[in-house]
Amino acid sequence: MLRVYGDVFSGNCYKVKLLLHQLGLEHEWRNIDILKRESRTPEFLALNSNGRIPVLQIAPDMHLAESNAILQYLANDGQSDRLWPGGRADQARALQWMFFEQYSHEPYVATARYIVRYLGRPPEQEERLQDKFGPGYAALSVMEKHLEANAFFAAGRYTVADIALYAYTHVAHEGGFDLARFPAVNAWMERVRGQPRHIGMG
Amino acid sequence: MLRVYGDVFSGNCYKVKLLLHQLGLEHEWRNIDILKRESRTPEFLALNSNGRIPVLQIAPDMHLAESNAILQYLANDGQSDRLWPGGRADQARALQWMFFEQYSHEPYVATARYIVRYLGRPPEQEERLQDKFGPGYAALSVMEKHLEANAFFAAGRYTVADIALYAYTHVAHEGGFDLARFPAVNAWMERVRGQPRHIGMG
Repeated sequence: MLRVYGDVFSGNCYKVKLLLHQLGLEHEWRNIDILKRESRTPEFLALNSNGRIPVLQIAPDMHLAESNAILQYLANDGQSDRLWPGGRADQARALQWMFFEQYSHEPYVATARYIVRYLGRPPEQEERLQDKFGPGYAALSVMEKHLEANAFFAAGRYTVADIALYAYTHVAHEGGFDLARFPAVNAWMERVRGQPRHIGMG
Repeated sequence: MLRVYGDVFSGNCYKVKLLLHQLGLEHEWRNIDILKRESRTPEFLALNSNGRIPVLQIAPDMHLAESNAILQYLANDGQSDRLWPGGRADQARALQWMFFEQYSHEPYVATARYIVRYLGRPPEQEERLQDKFGPGYAALSVMEKHLEANAFFAAGRYTVADIALYAYTHVAHEGGFDLARFPAVNAWMERVRGQPRHIGMG
């Protein structure tokens, strides 16, 4: 059986949980508490030397890291009606948005939430927190512009790119972002929540 | 014909140039000077609303952004002996390292080089520069550990994952990183340079 090492309140881990549920794949979930540095133990580093969650065990001695690589792996099951698109350009477009998510969105939108929710917004992190809003709002604006003209991010339908971007966007307010500024993003989030077998975080 | 918008001294753009050359694909190169904010003009933002290079024109009205998505698109040409692996686990492993590159490596290794080489290491950026070395060395150490036991990053052979990681690693010293600490990384860089039709940056 598939085994996930993760934290259900981490957006990167929630991506994997949501997709596993939508694909109907049974799995075992092993909780990793990053605040207790459980992702930095020798045992965990043997699974992912980069010391990050989530990690997916795909065979007894084979572990896959990086949330968006895990999404691609799980959805790339040879069934063209599933969540990894079939065509070459559509696949690349999905990946474009998944790389956008990890480079231009997550380091700001997710990290602001981490500072507020996980660390309790300590005063010594306030400057770092404030630095997240400019780039984070820029990323949300890029999403808004795309979603003003498109229902989803790639292939004209719900794909793993939507899962990747939904994970931290839908909880961006927990880090202090005002999502009311982005009507197209809100309408897209409703479409994501309306997909079959959608589940929430946690 | 394929058209690339980029800067030949940007590692993210060099990835695309190297792969196009190795695949023998003719292309037109349009230089974009980011210091002159040419990636933020209305014309450029119409190609990539995120305002970043490289961008690949794949059809008259179709543009692809994100360097690693471009690599996957170009190599995913249906020829299993090319640089995008054929198997599901190998594809996911290549993507794992490409997401690692964009999240854990590029923001530190590439940005240090940007501050030194592009911005001329101004005093007001010194603290930001110093903050890059801890995470940057951590990423190089993750690579070193993998390369102590593996010749390449995915599929047991040279793939787009190696191109993605080579681009900024081989110029990491320009940002102040001491690559002599990483013998396995150096041996791997020699293997990358020994691939057919390898070309250098610039």
